Amino acid sequence: MNQTNKLMSYHFSKTVLDTWDHTQEKLASLMKAEGFGILTEIDMQKALKDKLGVEFRRYSIFGFCNPNFAYQALQTEPYIGTMLPCNVVMQQYEDGRIEVSAVDPVASMQAIKNPTLATLASEVRAKLERGILAL
Amino acid sequence: MNQTNKLMSYHFSKTVLDTWDHTQEKLASLMKAEGFGILTEIDMQKALKDKLGVEFRRYSIFGFCNPNFAYQALQTEPYIGTMLPCNVVMQQYEDGRIEVSAVDPVASMQAIKNPTLATLASEVRAKLERGILAL
Repeated sequence: MNQTNKLMSYHFSKTVLDTWDHTQEKLASLMKAEGFGILTEIDMQKALKDKLGVEFRRYSIFGFCNPNFAYQALQTEPYIGTMLPCNVVMQQYEDGRIEVSAVDPVASMQAIKNPTLATLASEVRAKLERGILAL
Repeated sequence: MNQTNKLMSYHFSKTVLDTWDHTQEKLASLMKAEGFGILTEIDMQKALKDKLGVEFRRYSIFGFCNPNFAYQALQTEPYIGTMLPCNVVMQQYEDGRIEVSAVDPVASMQAIKNPTLATLASEVRAKLERGILAL
């Protein structure tokens, strides 16, 4: 279910009223339709508990990669791996709402002066935005 | 062994003449000394081969996280997970040289208007730079 819908300067976010597992499945399916697979997953709540002993809300970071775009980006910008894959955050607030946020690659890559990369980043941005807003 | 030593706009890089495994061990050790553990590892060479059937040089992306800094960043900027962890790339060229590159978080986070985060990013940048340049 859609709740809110925000466009920010460095991420695309959407808040849903749904279960964690169903949201994660839907996210994976929508991103797959845009050509992205999941390469990494970080349970930040667990990491902070294990390393620092602190309590934090449920917070996971998924690293999504579209292999075609990654390959093109790596060919034009050999160091772009420092900003790959494209992260999507899922976090759950006290009232149960889950917010899903994808990085805006145009924002994170703005320091890189490479017109070919900028074009790729814009295309990836459109795909990520479409995936997130369809949640 | 040090070979070259570059400061670029969005990453800190250093090229070494050493084996892959020893470079990776040394990187992990130097980063540990700066408070970073490895949360994720992507074998991009293998991913590109598996998904696209293309040949690419050896190229790995390690996600390093300093839990103290991550916790502070998450408290001041709830969406910063879209830019965590801090990536370090290891890539090996045809002549055998290995280049190691850490993201400059000040560059990747420049679109975020948050002075507290900017201070944290500068501190993390100094740690990453120190780790990479010590290779």
